[in-house]
Amino acid sequence: MKSFIEYSANTDFPIENLPYGVFTSPKNAQKHIGVAIGDWILDLHVISHLFSGPLLKGKQHVFRDDKLNSFMGLTKAHWIEARATLQSLLDASNTKLKNDSELRQKAFVKQSEATMHLPAEIGDYTDFYSSIHHATNVGIMFRSKENALMPNWKHLPVGYHGRSSSIVISGTPITRPYGQTLPIEGADPHFGPSRLMDFELEMACFVGGPPTALGERVSARHAEERLFGFVLMNDWSARDIQKWEYVPLGPFTAKNLGTSISPWIVTIEALRPYIVDNYPQDPEPFAYLKHDDKFNFDIKLEVDVKTDKSPVANTICRSNYRFMYWTVKQQLAQQTVSGCNLRPGDLLGSGTISGDTSDSYGSMLELSWKGTKPIRLQNGEERKFLQDGDTVILRGYCINEIGVRIGFGKCEGKLLPALPFKE
Amino acid sequence: MKSFIEYSANTDFPIENLPYGVFTSPKNAQKHIGVAIGDWILDLHVISHLFSGPLLKGKQHVFRDDKLNSFMGLTKAHWIEARATLQSLLDASNTKLKNDSELRQKAFVKQSEATMHLPAEIGDYTDFYSSIHHATNVGIMFRSKENALMPNWKHLPVGYHGRSSSIVISGTPITRPYGQTLPIEGADPHFGPSRLMDFELEMACFVGGPPTALGERVSARHAEERLFGFVLMNDWSARDIQKWEYVPLGPFTAKNLGTSISPWIVTIEALRPYIVDNYPQDPEPFAYLKHDDKFNFDIKLEVDVKTDKSPVANTICRSNYRFMYWTVKQQLAQQTVSGCNLRPGDLLGSGTISGDTSDSYGSMLELSWKGTKPIRLQNGEERKFLQDGDTVILRGYCINEIGVRIGFGKCEGKLLPALPFKE
Repeated sequence: MKSFIEYSANTDFPIENLPYGVFTSPKNAQKHIGVAIGDWILDLHVISHLFSGPLLKGKQHVFRDDKLNSFMGLTKAHWIEARATLQSLLDASNTKLKNDSELRQKAFVKQSEATMHLPAEIGDYTDFYSSIHHATNVGIMFRSKENALMPNWKHLPVGYHGRSSSIVISGTPITRPYGQTLPIEGADPHFGPSRLMDFELEMACFVGGPPTALGERVSARHAEERLFGFVLMNDWSARDIQKWEYVPLGPFTAKNLGTSISPWIVTIEALRPYIVDNYPQDPEPFAYLKHDDKFNFDIKLEVDVKTDKSPVANTICRSNYRFMYWTVKQQLAQQTVSGCNLRPGDLLGSGTISGDTSDSYGSMLELSWKGTKPIRLQNGEERKFLQDGDTVILRGYCINEIGVRIGFGKCEGKLLPALPFKE
Repeated sequence: MKSFIEYSANTDFPIENLPYGVFTSPKNAQKHIGVAIGDWILDLHVISHLFSGPLLKGKQHVFRDDKLNSFMGLTKAHWIEARATLQSLLDASNTKLKNDSELRQKAFVKQSEATMHLPAEIGDYTDFYSSIHHATNVGIMFRSKENALMPNWKHLPVGYHGRSSSIVISGTPITRPYGQTLPIEGADPHFGPSRLMDFELEMACFVGGPPTALGERVSARHAEERLFGFVLMNDWSARDIQKWEYVPLGPFTAKNLGTSISPWIVTIEALRPYIVDNYPQDPEPFAYLKHDDKFNFDIKLEVDVKTDKSPVANTICRSNYRFMYWTVKQQLAQQTVSGCNLRPGDLLGSGTISGDTSDSYGSMLELSWKGTKPIRLQNGEERKFLQDGDTVILRGYCINEIGVRIGFGKCEGKLLPALPFKE
């Protein structure tokens, strides 16, 4: 496949990708839906009339919306038709858009001149805990090697409800939070800025399809109709606050201080060439969690940290989505097993994605092994947890055997110092 | 105060109450905002032009919306002006509405002919755990009398994020959920319909005021500007599913099977005459959780159960909101302490409200003491947990020393049998 839009061989956004996002530009302050191609955004609002396939012809309004929920709320067949239309319109051999200089002028916006926004209204956000290496590492640190995994962990994808309001788009700064911590076991708690700020390398999947009814289950075998696409996610975490507050109802203010996502949603269809074997599961899961097809993805993930003194990319983690024990189909089945209803735009976080080697751990907690093994940056600086002014950048990409590369762009955020405390 | 609308002395909705809700009627399929008065609803869409006070004159559109979020998103001063306008319009001495028979005809709808809907779009829903008797009871049952309360419990209002999509309006049936449970400790888990279905008697407060920014804290002293009003809430719970899934990240599918709320939001201003002393707190909370004023409420709460064989109201619990250890101001301060942003329409659940006597416990789990003391109904039937076909009805009301009574209506739901399982 070749597009008439030129881009470099290592772009995240070749014609094989075509991820969806929402942007504004200096020319247009209204949010439009766009698709990334090379260094450009194709404005779908402007070309909505070109979605003339049998399914989308009567649904062109979804491309003129200011968020992706309505498009997500159609069906997989609609998404596939949209992708085919876009690939055709952008193909080097198709003159329709290529040779219409007036339309081209209006339809393409430089990514460097655009501002990206949250791609959808996120009704509900769930965060899972599905990387076996991460769950094991945390279990060893906080319990013991023998009891690292909780008894339920291999029977169901453990997850919890997160806060939707505090999900922000890449680039939004995060402020070091205040909270209660227990510096000395058995003593009184302390109140002040968190001292153990961390990132979590995650990916998150947007739910699509029409809303389901309360009481309706979607088993893993039928989950694909409901999965729209993935973004990178940094689930910023205040470890010291989390440790004190999380018993018995789970993490709360240690997480709702901000969760960053990358702006471009890479669709399941774009990821299909990078499907790999599922992680072996033992014991065999219950029927509602079973699916026969492969639905794991070879997505190379990296975390860079830039500091005030070291503004270069210090890559401190190289992981891969394929390390996930539970697939996103299984996560969706668990989300709905008790009849919980879905709405298009819901977000399912993977949980921290750690690999099996110590340079592939997806959090500072694991990389520095609870602060006992400082991470050394290129300029000699050390980090146990994040310091004020540190910028965390998540990146993700796939390459297949014939060298076709697609990427996720980046999910970036800078940690700002705690604000002065006012009562 | 006397209204020209006639109602009985024990109505939940005298002119002193004026709770807000959203309804449709046989005459009008579009959702309108209304206020309950006696057996009637005053349609605010129809009388929006009468909000002619200095603050609301330019904001009348909020009363023509199909949900309360825009009105909630104004300020406390706006809410107070709206209440004064409504009390004046409904007053027996005011002829404006009373004598305009054409407008009256359009503006009043019988509650018995209306269908109530969720009053607001709930962006995020948090459930707290703020009744000391409930937390102690659960702690004794699952741990021991000595370790009943977790170490953090008296230092902060423990809470967790719930699922917004599965919040439903009173009257919506709830289906017995499927899920994994661990019937025998140490054995393999089991999959099937929950066998320990329960209700939780709660109240929930809608957040109001303009959205706050991520990073912004609202301390308890400033929380009142953000509190719009209360509803009754039944946080349906599958105890057996919860017990297996909740470690370490908290309740998930045991709760997102459905959460019922009553349709009428009783405002803080209406509740003001029923303010009582706060629950004594020891240790003294941190500054961000402190407020000097009384902000606890004497709200009498009752739970009725109707069964297929006993369709009368079996009142199995009489509790009171005043048993709350943490005030809703403190809950809001905890919600935002790490910088979590608020949106109008967010919902803060109280947690199960149990009193200090065994007939005031707010769940079957406590009333039947984990199934060891069956609850006897009037017809001799017994219940340890809920059975298929059981209807649970929460009611709440306040009476002050001069006999003025306001109420919350009811929060009702019927438990339907589990659906046949399909893979």
